[in-house]
Amino acid sequence: MSRGPQQSEEQQMAVRIEHDLVGDKEVPADAYYGVHTVRAVENFAITGSTIAQFPDLITALAAVKQAAAQANRDLDLLSPDIAAAIIGVCEEIRAGRLVDQFVVDPVQGGAGTSTNMNTNEVIANRALELLGRPRGSYDVIHPLDHVNLGQSTNDVYPTAVRLALVTSLHRLGHSLGALATAFTEKAAEFSGVLKMGRTQLQDAVPMTLGQEFTTYAVMIEEDRQRLTEAAALLLESNLGGTAIGTGINGHPRYAELACAYLAEISGESVRPAGDFIEATQDCGAFVQLSGVLKRVAVKLSKTCNDLRLTSSGPTAGLGEINLPPVQAGSSIMPGKVNPVIPEVVNQVAFEVIGNDLTVTLAAEAGQLQLNAFEPVIAYSLLRSLTHLRAACDTLATRCVPGITANREHLHDSVHRSIGLVTALAPHIGYAASTTLARQALTTGRTIKDLAAEGGLLTTDQLDTILRPENLTQPFGGPSAAATP
Amino acid sequence: MSRGPQQSEEQQMAVRIEHDLVGDKEVPADAYYGVHTVRAVENFAITGSTIAQFPDLITALAAVKQAAAQANRDLDLLSPDIAAAIIGVCEEIRAGRLVDQFVVDPVQGGAGTSTNMNTNEVIANRALELLGRPRGSYDVIHPLDHVNLGQSTNDVYPTAVRLALVTSLHRLGHSLGALATAFTEKAAEFSGVLKMGRTQLQDAVPMTLGQEFTTYAVMIEEDRQRLTEAAALLLESNLGGTAIGTGINGHPRYAELACAYLAEISGESVRPAGDFIEATQDCGAFVQLSGVLKRVAVKLSKTCNDLRLTSSGPTAGLGEINLPPVQAGSSIMPGKVNPVIPEVVNQVAFEVIGNDLTVTLAAEAGQLQLNAFEPVIAYSLLRSLTHLRAACDTLATRCVPGITANREHLHDSVHRSIGLVTALAPHIGYAASTTLARQALTTGRTIKDLAAEGGLLTTDQLDTILRPENLTQPFGGPSAAATP
Amino acid sequence: MSRGPQQSEEQQMAVRIEHDLVGDKEVPADAYYGVHTVRAVENFAITGSTIAQFPDLITALAAVKQAAAQANRDLDLLSPDIAAAIIGVCEEIRAGRLVDQFVVDPVQGGAGTSTNMNTNEVIANRALELLGRPRGSYDVIHPLDHVNLGQSTNDVYPTAVRLALVTSLHRLGHSLGALATAFTEKAAEFSGVLKMGRTQLQDAVPMTLGQEFTTYAVMIEEDRQRLTEAAALLLESNLGGTAIGTGINGHPRYAELACAYLAEISGESVRPAGDFIEATQDCGAFVQLSGVLKRVAVKLSKTCNDLRLTSSGPTAGLGEINLPPVQAGSSIMPGKVNPVIPEVVNQVAFEVIGNDLTVTLAAEAGQLQLNAFEPVIAYSLLRSLTHLRAACDTLATRCVPGITANREHLHDSVHRSIGLVTALAPHIGYAASTTLARQALTTGRTIKDLAAEGGLLTTDQLDTILRPENLTQPFGGPSAAATP
Amino acid sequence: MSRGPQQSEEQQMAVRIEHDLVGDKEVPADAYYGVHTVRAVENFAITGSTIAQFPDLITALAAVKQAAAQANRDLDLLSPDIAAAIIGVCEEIRAGRLVDQFVVDPVQGGAGTSTNMNTNEVIANRALELLGRPRGSYDVIHPLDHVNLGQSTNDVYPTAVRLALVTSLHRLGHSLGALATAFTEKAAEFSGVLKMGRTQLQDAVPMTLGQEFTTYAVMIEEDRQRLTEAAALLLESNLGGTAIGTGINGHPRYAELACAYLAEISGESVRPAGDFIEATQDCGAFVQLSGVLKRVAVKLSKTCNDLRLTSSGPTAGLGEINLPPVQAGSSIMPGKVNPVIPEVVNQVAFEVIGNDLTVTLAAEAGQLQLNAFEPVIAYSLLRSLTHLRAACDTLATRCVPGITANREHLHDSVHRSIGLVTALAPHIGYAASTTLARQALTTGRTIKDLAAEGGLLTTDQLDTILRPENLTQPFGGPSAAATP
Repeated sequence: MSRGPQQSEEQQMAVRIEHDLVGDKEVPADAYYGVHTVRAVENFAITGSTIAQFPDLITALAAVKQAAAQANRDLDLLSPDIAAAIIGVCEEIRAGRLVDQFVVDPVQGGAGTSTNMNTNEVIANRALELLGRPRGSYDVIHPLDHVNLGQSTNDVYPTAVRLALVTSLHRLGHSLGALATAFTEKAAEFSGVLKMGRTQLQDAVPMTLGQEFTTYAVMIEEDRQRLTEAAALLLESNLGGTAIGTGINGHPRYAELACAYLAEISGESVRPAGDFIEATQDCGAFVQLSGVLKRVAVKLSKTCNDLRLTSSGPTAGLGEINLPPVQAGSSIMPGKVNPVIPEVVNQVAFEVIGNDLTVTLAAEAGQLQLNAFEPVIAYSLLRSLTHLRAACDTLATRCVPGITANREHLHDSVHRSIGLVTALAPHIGYAASTTLARQALTTGRTIKDLAAEGGLLTTDQLDTILRPENLTQPFGGPSAAATP
Repeated sequence: MSRGPQQSEEQQMAVRIEHDLVGDKEVPADAYYGVHTVRAVENFAITGSTIAQFPDLITALAAVKQAAAQANRDLDLLSPDIAAAIIGVCEEIRAGRLVDQFVVDPVQGGAGTSTNMNTNEVIANRALELLGRPRGSYDVIHPLDHVNLGQSTNDVYPTAVRLALVTSLHRLGHSLGALATAFTEKAAEFSGVLKMGRTQLQDAVPMTLGQEFTTYAVMIEEDRQRLTEAAALLLESNLGGTAIGTGINGHPRYAELACAYLAEISGESVRPAGDFIEATQDCGAFVQLSGVLKRVAVKLSKTCNDLRLTSSGPTAGLGEINLPPVQAGSSIMPGKVNPVIPEVVNQVAFEVIGNDLTVTLAAEAGQLQLNAFEPVIAYSLLRSLTHLRAACDTLATRCVPGITANREHLHDSVHRSIGLVTALAPHIGYAASTTLARQALTTGRTIKDLAAEGGLLTTDQLDTILRPENLTQPFGGPSAAATP
Repeated sequence: MSRGPQQSEEQQMAVRIEHDLVGDKEVPADAYYGVHTVRAVENFAITGSTIAQFPDLITALAAVKQAAAQANRDLDLLSPDIAAAIIGVCEEIRAGRLVDQFVVDPVQGGAGTSTNMNTNEVIANRALELLGRPRGSYDVIHPLDHVNLGQSTNDVYPTAVRLALVTSLHRLGHSLGALATAFTEKAAEFSGVLKMGRTQLQDAVPMTLGQEFTTYAVMIEEDRQRLTEAAALLLESNLGGTAIGTGINGHPRYAELACAYLAEISGESVRPAGDFIEATQDCGAFVQLSGVLKRVAVKLSKTCNDLRLTSSGPTAGLGEINLPPVQAGSSIMPGKVNPVIPEVVNQVAFEVIGNDLTVTLAAEAGQLQLNAFEPVIAYSLLRSLTHLRAACDTLATRCVPGITANREHLHDSVHRSIGLVTALAPHIGYAASTTLARQALTTGRTIKDLAAEGGLLTTDQLDTILRPENLTQPFGGPSAAATP
Repeated sequence: MSRGPQQSEEQQMAVRIEHDLVGDKEVPADAYYGVHTVRAVENFAITGSTIAQFPDLITALAAVKQAAAQANRDLDLLSPDIAAAIIGVCEEIRAGRLVDQFVVDPVQGGAGTSTNMNTNEVIANRALELLGRPRGSYDVIHPLDHVNLGQSTNDVYPTAVRLALVTSLHRLGHSLGALATAFTEKAAEFSGVLKMGRTQLQDAVPMTLGQEFTTYAVMIEEDRQRLTEAAALLLESNLGGTAIGTGINGHPRYAELACAYLAEISGESVRPAGDFIEATQDCGAFVQLSGVLKRVAVKLSKTCNDLRLTSSGPTAGLGEINLPPVQAGSSIMPGKVNPVIPEVVNQVAFEVIGNDLTVTLAAEAGQLQLNAFEPVIAYSLLRSLTHLRAACDTLATRCVPGITANREHLHDSVHRSIGLVTALAPHIGYAASTTLARQALTTGRTIKDLAAEGGLLTTDQLDTILRPENLTQPFGGPSAAATP
């Protein structure tokens, strides 16, 4: 999938030797990453994938490193030329280059140290290259002493993850918006289509199909607001807290400066946390976001359940609406078409809810001054965001716009329904209405006919009471009126 | 709810003074429990309930204490008269007496120590009473030195909890059996009722309503087998392992003897675990049981979802079956009847699945030689078992037997369905069948008419192919034949 | 537990006959509830408890009924005397009376209809009594036509549940506040106590015990803010939407008026939802609250894990702090004291996280215009709130205030730790520091001694660098300074 | 990642036109897959991955298709040459070829139809190629009429998924076995190392480090047995049930024959389900497996928690054992080494528990005769199995074998511990022991010294009582004896 060390070794490529706490280690000669990355790739071979699958995370890591370099340069902790080289590489990465050098598994021990090390090494070696130096010349630019200067994984990694989540949230918000629009447009198209509303799957009282589709849009819009609130919490950064939030080894002005630069680079209103020690260990914002994503998933799943239910049929189902056919439904049943798009959205929703549990477990397992399990939190949340967005896009483009209504069938179902009796109850009482309903159910005749026949109300009265707009919008609001 | 210490104090009742590691403490003079219980009641005021809500647990605790006393008596560690008194009290408790003396909250810190202490104290004081001694005469019979002799909370509590779960499992198994029987009886009643089978809520191919109801019964019976397997794992006991499973302070023959007595007393095939240290800390059997209860809940919920769906209506729903009305459905809609029994079963299923998560979290949080969180595991599992059983009983008695089928409607839905085209596909091919299905859908005419008219098959051929028994039991099995 | 119908029947009490859709039914003559309640008690015997266990819910139901009656009176839909009687009963209930008449199981089918019916019947019969009429004189005051006038379970029940949750949230917020204060006070007491901070359970860099305890307080305070936000969402009401949110049978001005009265009665800023149809079926606010409660649980559990870990010992553990002994820890190990209070808080946290899953499942299962499973949502959330509050109170009163620090041990652990080398790294480089750390680990000598001895830094330099305030608060903030 | 249709189109490759229910569609000329696959790839772009990531699934699909072809050939439903061609392709696929042609997303709507269609098309076109025919010559070999003959997605897909899970389970079982062996070997190495056992993180009574490590092995071996039981349930197949389990369009002898061939081909004891209709819709075996995987995850996580806890330090932790360093632990703290391998195992455990929830949600959402959400069930379970196996391998090779014990420190901790007092309790009583323990704790002196000094026991008695083998194996078992 990526040019990782294993492949290089198989091909007997040239290597360079690097050294760390464990000892000497071969690194592919042309790799921008170094010894720490190679060890991490060997230690963590879990998912068969790399962090490169999350471009928003790679971009965010580069943004944090750039902000740190700019702050350190201003504080005279980093020489201008080294700073310039580092910043240049960060800008390259943020423009989408070098992504294939991010080869560590997203699920990793070490609280994100390997991701941070991978980033430090790629930046150092590419910066060395820009300065015309061979890779590994760490006496000139060192991954830790220069690229990681004044930083710790414990402030860099969560800050980058949070920023990546915010970027992904913007993307999801955009897709949710498009989906809400698709539902709103359908709602307008269906505003005049009367149907039976149902509670507990039993016929209740009339409404319009437009009102039903408006509901889907309203729910999505409310979820978008919750996502925006959750994003705001993510923009609290502990950058400058270094190891455990006490800011050890950090310059007193570094935190403020680095945070301001990060805000400028990212375009997001990143701000320093109120208590760096708390912020370093706290996963509250991740749990909160995960809870809101679960909420989004629950709503989307409910909406898709409704779409599948109301489009059930074609003959033995509710048959209220038709979803556009997008593929053959069966390898054995000719002509069968299935609601495959809502079905895949349901499944993504189930995955997101499962991911929320993973996040919860990981957050609870944090101990003392750090949560060692942030990598699986990041992995779960970034996957939830990505998959949810894909699901929304699929639903918004391949399903909702092509939905049609079986208007006649819906019209008939209202007029045959005993649910209309509810509208008569204020005029003839609950007890008489109950009798009328049972009568209609037994005889198969309509409420209107029986009421007129029994002399309970005149035909004129019944016409007025049962006029669609009186049934579906008693408050007189014009918004979703059933105008036949 | 019970005569706990608070109430006694309010009433300024007489007290006696007992002493423990923390100091002196007043205990209601007439209470059988003692100082440890009083402290526990004060320390853990969480759920507003007591362990007395789980009679199976109280019985199991008494059974374990009785087995221990019998073993200790045989080993000459306990004098015959003290042993006899203790055993006598245990038999009283197992007969349902003294339940109101079990006043500690089921959700408690201390890994069940308070439950064990409560049991020890009640037995000691009631035994003293039987011997004509005042309460608190612990020099004669001591809650720890005599009643708890050779025991630790760490072997007594899990053993009792496991035994209580097995008893509750028998009860649940009985209720599931009755529910399966109710479905099987309905399946026989509905064996001749043809209906459209559905996949993905879309019309698929015909089946009988009897086959559908048989499925519900089969699923339940399979679950019962899984419960039986889970129960077997619970009967491994660490009794005799004392504090951490090394058996410190225990007599070499105690474990074997106590376990044999416990099997005799309980009537269950309790057996010693293979590795007492492992058994003392391991919550695997609880997690396994919880997973199986989750499975039961998932299936029950799916079955109730189906019942609610196929009984939807009365006019605008699927209207295949009718559930018996058991109460009025609405405070505003006269004549409305809702599927309230399946709905409550769904909710119990959701609760059980939630409880499974609680059990999982508690099991994962165990550390080193003990899981301190067994009380919430016991609480969750015992509630799941009790509520599931109530849900099954309710469904089996108040819903399933009264279900009726709308036979005509079901018959029509099969003959109007395009799903019948699948049966023609082996004769006319997948492609021609697809065309025929689309044609039927557009014109509203039946597959049979169109196939005959188009000369694709003769009427005789069609009659044979579309004969109900050929559609629903091609393997020739007589079990659920559709005989009109 | 309560005077339910079963008990009455056992005692062969006098009965009155009431009638509903299912037929005639005996009701205890002196019961304020009626036929619908009796049927519900029979249909739903799940948890062995009643809604009376949630006084906040009973109060909220009465508040909603009172608001409705006041609105209907103003709109001339209810005569002044009937309105006055109903309002009077509601005030009685809100003052805590008649609670034992709320006998339905909180876990019930029917989307809360039984709870609403129970409320309607109790109010009607008590109002009749106030007017000198016998129970059951529904021609005078009818549970549905008068008490439930212009209402549906579908707007009454969720509105009452939301209001009850808000009240319970206030209580939880108060308890969390007290807990945060307890931690803050301890933080002040421990502000001068230096200790090793840890990441991934490995020695990291120094901090103060005060800083550690401050963190616990900060986390709680942040959670309180999230709870306040979640509460705000709950105050959107669909009152007036009646059956499915279209407001059928409702007076055009009713919704606004009833909502205003409810705000006045409850003292909460209840406001009408923007889209009543959406609001009637939407469980988003419940899922959101549940997610935030899960967040609170995760944090509390993490905090208690830390307390248990740092108080581990007394000899073979970390032994940093001591929790106050509140009860004997073992039935076999003399002198053993266990961290039982944090342990019970952990278990409540696990329960709350499990309840969140129940809420999620129930919310996802909603169909079309209503979620039939709101009862189990209400049940789970009210239990989570109640138990969490009890857990916080227990922790705040029985554990935190009595915590003491092992100051000498903590001091020693810092000075013996190789973690101090981090502070030297900016002066001697990452590579030399690594060597020094390994050397210290091998020899068991201190970083300071080895650094001085090796001539890497002068003793003066080392003294400055390793001064506690320089290690723990490089930003110069005075808040949690380590002043020896 | 794979040669999917998009890339082909970008490169303006030659195409062929295929047709389905939706209309004409371009397919890359050289692709073995066809129109149904192309539509599926467009419809489901969720995870950015393909089913090719699960080789066990691809192999299982080919095995099922081969078994079906062999059965159809024997029944004269398929001509020998077409059968031979199909069987030949299946054998190629089972040997690892054509994997890149499986391009559909594992998360897909349609209950697995797209995976089945993808398989049918690849086999048909490769078989055509073997016969010298151009791709798309479906009049000769048709993906549905020949490759899918007598089959439905609804029996093929779950059968293949189950078989794939069983294969993956064997692999996981092997890895768990190796991990258990690694722990057992360490247990032998540590059999003579005395340490304090702990309950609730407080010092309890002595045990050996060998006993502690034996526990880890025992737990794993028990889990392996549970996995074997879960695998047995998966080998029930509904092959031959076709669409909904009624076996429509199937030859009466097909089910038996196909199942027998599948057993032969796979080497697994696949057997027909007792009730095909039930088996077609039932996800019980998936839920059961998922529950057991959750159990495995819970135990592994607990074990890794223990490893991280007992290796905490190096100076301020428990410091009982040392994990082998596998990479540098910090970008800021020189010399720091973290327990990264257990940490990554913890995270995989959290992921598996989250996946279990996804499986649960998907299983509960099944409706009527089919569960449409099996794809996400398969996806979750196959990922859990793969990741768990990787985690076990990592732990077994990169961590456990290199663990060393700090023997002196452990020895000291036992002799300084007040936990030893428990061993004296049977000799001097619970009350005197409590006093002694408190005295030891206050003075810092040892239990042994104080007991001797106080004349409670003689030095000889104390020596015997406190001999390691008497403390740790009172039952006299030689298995994990502490021989100094």
